[in-house]
Amino acid sequence: MTPEQMQDGIMHGSPAVRRRSMAKAITLLESSRADHRDQADGLLTALLPHTGKAFRLGISGVPGVGKSTFIEALGLYLIAQGLQVAVLAIDPSSTVSGGSILGDKTRMEQLSVNEKAYIRPSPSSGTLGGVAEKTREAMLVCEAAGYDVVIIETVGVGQSEIAVHGMTDMFCVLQLPNAGDDLQAIKKGVMELADLVVINKADIDPNAATRAQAQITSSLRLLGMHGNPDHATGGALWQPRVLQISALLGQGVEGFWAAVGQFRQLQTANGRLQLRREKQALAWMWERIDFGLKQAFRQHPQVKALLPGLQAEVAAGRIAASTAARNLLAAHAQQA
Amino acid sequence: MTPEQMQDGIMHGSPAVRRRSMAKAITLLESSRADHRDQADGLLTALLPHTGKAFRLGISGVPGVGKSTFIEALGLYLIAQGLQVAVLAIDPSSTVSGGSILGDKTRMEQLSVNEKAYIRPSPSSGTLGGVAEKTREAMLVCEAAGYDVVIIETVGVGQSEIAVHGMTDMFCVLQLPNAGDDLQAIKKGVMELADLVVINKADIDPNAATRAQAQITSSLRLLGMHGNPDHATGGALWQPRVLQISALLGQGVEGFWAAVGQFRQLQTANGRLQLRREKQALAWMWERIDFGLKQAFRQHPQVKALLPGLQAEVAAGRIAASTAARNLLAAHAQQA
Repeated sequence: MTPEQMQDGIMHGSPAVRRRSMAKAITLLESSRADHRDQADGLLTALLPHTGKAFRLGISGVPGVGKSTFIEALGLYLIAQGLQVAVLAIDPSSTVSGGSILGDKTRMEQLSVNEKAYIRPSPSSGTLGGVAEKTREAMLVCEAAGYDVVIIETVGVGQSEIAVHGMTDMFCVLQLPNAGDDLQAIKKGVMELADLVVINKADIDPNAATRAQAQITSSLRLLGMHGNPDHATGGALWQPRVLQISALLGQGVEGFWAAVGQFRQLQTANGRLQLRREKQALAWMWERIDFGLKQAFRQHPQVKALLPGLQAEVAAGRIAASTAARNLLAAHAQQA
Repeated sequence: MTPEQMQDGIMHGSPAVRRRSMAKAITLLESSRADHRDQADGLLTALLPHTGKAFRLGISGVPGVGKSTFIEALGLYLIAQGLQVAVLAIDPSSTVSGGSILGDKTRMEQLSVNEKAYIRPSPSSGTLGGVAEKTREAMLVCEAAGYDVVIIETVGVGQSEIAVHGMTDMFCVLQLPNAGDDLQAIKKGVMELADLVVINKADIDPNAATRAQAQITSSLRLLGMHGNPDHATGGALWQPRVLQISALLGQGVEGFWAAVGQFRQLQTANGRLQLRREKQALAWMWERIDFGLKQAFRQHPQVKALLPGLQAEVAAGRIAASTAARNLLAAHAQQA
């Protein structure tokens, strides 16, 4: 399938052709071959004018919190409202193991067989930065294909949450109704990224869920005074909320989607949605530039020749780190 | 004064000559002139074999926690034990305002006039990375001059704490006996960096101080299960502690120094002190390389020519961020 055929299939194909074209396009975008990359860049640029209309929803939570059950319930609810839903995943474990525990179709049995839904597992190799880039590009493919909501899920451990926050319009954190969990999220700086915190499995222990809701709400107030430019304790900006749901019983999904709608409306009206996307795109560009610069640096012949010796000297305290850095930069600045 | 004279004065001068030579050397290290930088690199390399014998102690805390009073009490205590003390500072506000609120000699009236002490305020301009680099280099000058303990203080707001943690053997966080403060430190990921937490002003409200001590101890246990390779809940690794002191009344300084001694002994015996310094030196080298690469990239004529247009296209969603990054990297790879 040529990139032109993929583009046509993505934008104008029958459901089956569209799905196949999307899969082919995403595979092309994930390829690391140089000629594929040129084709992929061309395809992306052609699709780009047709992207941006979906709502990009990030969902994170520790293993066991019930992400799959929640996303399936939400996806089916949205389809019942007449919307089309795509689910992508960033699995930090896949960057190490090559395996993928997220976005596995078998986890969402009903959603995965619904023709209004598209589910794609996490790219299964490369650095987190590389996986995040592929997922961003896959998101653009889904948008060009006309999906109304793109859900990007990740496991609530490590840097992948920051990556998902950096590519979505709204970032939601799923929590279990207990406090240790909460402390971990605050510690990692994830809580302050959350536009919405969802306490799942609230039916199991309603009292604990209510305590957790109060506790997280008060933590968010405290945290909200600093940092996140999208949040405020008052005025025209969004105030992060904490909801209780039970995904298994299907309770609270409607309320969740209503809160998402209020967020979207406010962020559109106050211009924050547009601003957030612009900042995300520029941050993404600089992240890829940084990565490319470091890669080129490490592959430079002079640097390769000098690096092992200088690293040993720096580690042994025989040359100052700043001096070694200047020597390496000077070697790199010379033409290979 | 030539760099050779500085080196001689730092290592062999009378107290007055040594002090003057240190000041000249640190001023040379802080200069951004290219010829000064070459001299500074030569001086650093000459001093380096004579560094590394001091204990490097990082101290952080929010404004009002009593850092100056504590450092003065600690410094005078150490001098009474026959030790020489240097105090350096990293003031994040100085990188914005050019002013400096830390390391101000007038804040430590007794310590600043003691000839066994050397106090140097924060470098007062540049990025945080630049200020941190100058402070690291000043630390090496102090070590070559024979100071036994180098204290590096910073304000407990923002990234400067990570910078100080990244250049010291032990990182201590001063806290007030109240909980909101505690949450902020956990949020910023600073608490998990702390080898020792010191609750200052414990005399004002002993009950609150004891509650804070218990609360922070339990938070540290929870946090300690993840992340910091220097810490553990048992075995041969250090378990972070929480102490109560009253710097104003001079209470607890001796106990503080005893805890520092235990930490130092353990970290020396288990090899972590050496490992930490090696990692810090290599991380410092890579940080300066990253900074240098980005700076050279932004100054490259082709990049300068293309960047404004591409940034606008990316922000407007007309070109994918990854495509723009690849275009800029390709332009940069061509010889100017």
